[in-house]
Amino acid sequence: MLEVEIKARVKIKQIQGKLNGLGARPLGEEHQRDIYFSHPCRDFKERDEALRVRRIKNEYFLTYKGPKLDEETKTREEIEIKVGKGIVSLLEKLGFSKLREIEKKRSFYQWENLAISLDKVEGLGEFLEVEGKSYIDKERIFKLLKKLGISRKELIRESYLEMLEEQ
Amino acid sequence: MLEVEIKARVKIKQIQGKLNGLGARPLGEEHQRDIYFSHPCRDFKERDEALRVRRIKNEYFLTYKGPKLDEETKTREEIEIKVGKGIVSLLEKLGFSKLREIEKKRSFYQWENLAISLDKVEGLGEFLEVEGKSYIDKERIFKLLKKLGISRKELIRESYLEMLEEQ
Repeated sequence: MLEVEIKARVKIKQIQGKLNGLGARPLGEEHQRDIYFSHPCRDFKERDEALRVRRIKNEYFLTYKGPKLDEETKTREEIEIKVGKGIVSLLEKLGFSKLREIEKKRSFYQWENLAISLDKVEGLGEFLEVEGKSYIDKERIFKLLKKLGISRKELIRESYLEMLEEQ
Repeated sequence: MLEVEIKARVKIKQIQGKLNGLGARPLGEEHQRDIYFSHPCRDFKERDEALRVRRIKNEYFLTYKGPKLDEETKTREEIEIKVGKGIVSLLEKLGFSKLREIEKKRSFYQWENLAISLDKVEGLGEFLEVEGKSYIDKERIFKLLKKLGISRKELIRESYLEMLEEQ
């Protein structure tokens, strides 16, 4: 599946107000605990790939993210599957190593067919992420950004992992 | 988890009769479709490890098998988790390659605390597998083999994968 996604640093309270004004639908919030892994023989950073185990309460998800496909957004191939609890031990047996853990509180909104997240990331700050499912959604995303008063120049292509690694 | 396991080539009809005589409990049967993978940079065969995706109807399981720990049986560490359908694509993205598919019909029985399987493996024949959860079960397994008229010399340590690769 293709994930068309943008990210910007924001003040959550401010954006929440604007989203409410636009009639965006609040869909709840959750605590996400992510573990990123390094590959036994590939440089994920070099190849612009990532492998993540996400834990939400007692559910686990394994996600592969392919290289970014676009200069402006974070669009990339993504494969995500639900997995059992033993996934971390299993990956370690295969030679993958824990690179970093990232914890965040994420609030979800929907506007038109876009998935909007407001993230409070431990050690990093507050961010907006907007995700669509195709290139057609890209224009819709830019329309939303305009309404939120965010310019294209403010967009961040780095992942939270890369941002934390750079600190 | 430790998996204490033996395998022998048998005639299924004959063993079924004996298991019924012993009062073993039949637990049903299923069709299993297994895909074994090679590692992007490790020689699983050399290291006596294996990675398998098993499909049973529309359920998928990912299993890592560690090196055999015992001269006589197939005892080894095993980590198995339930996973989503996209697991094969995800593994391929990480550089794992499909090595071989193995299909079998497996009938389950329980005797004392042992898990017994009668396997009809495509292209390979009919087999008995008996599995326990600890070294204490090892003696119980040998007691059962005696009752079934199978000698220790008949035990096979090769996996179905290895047997098919050797053909």
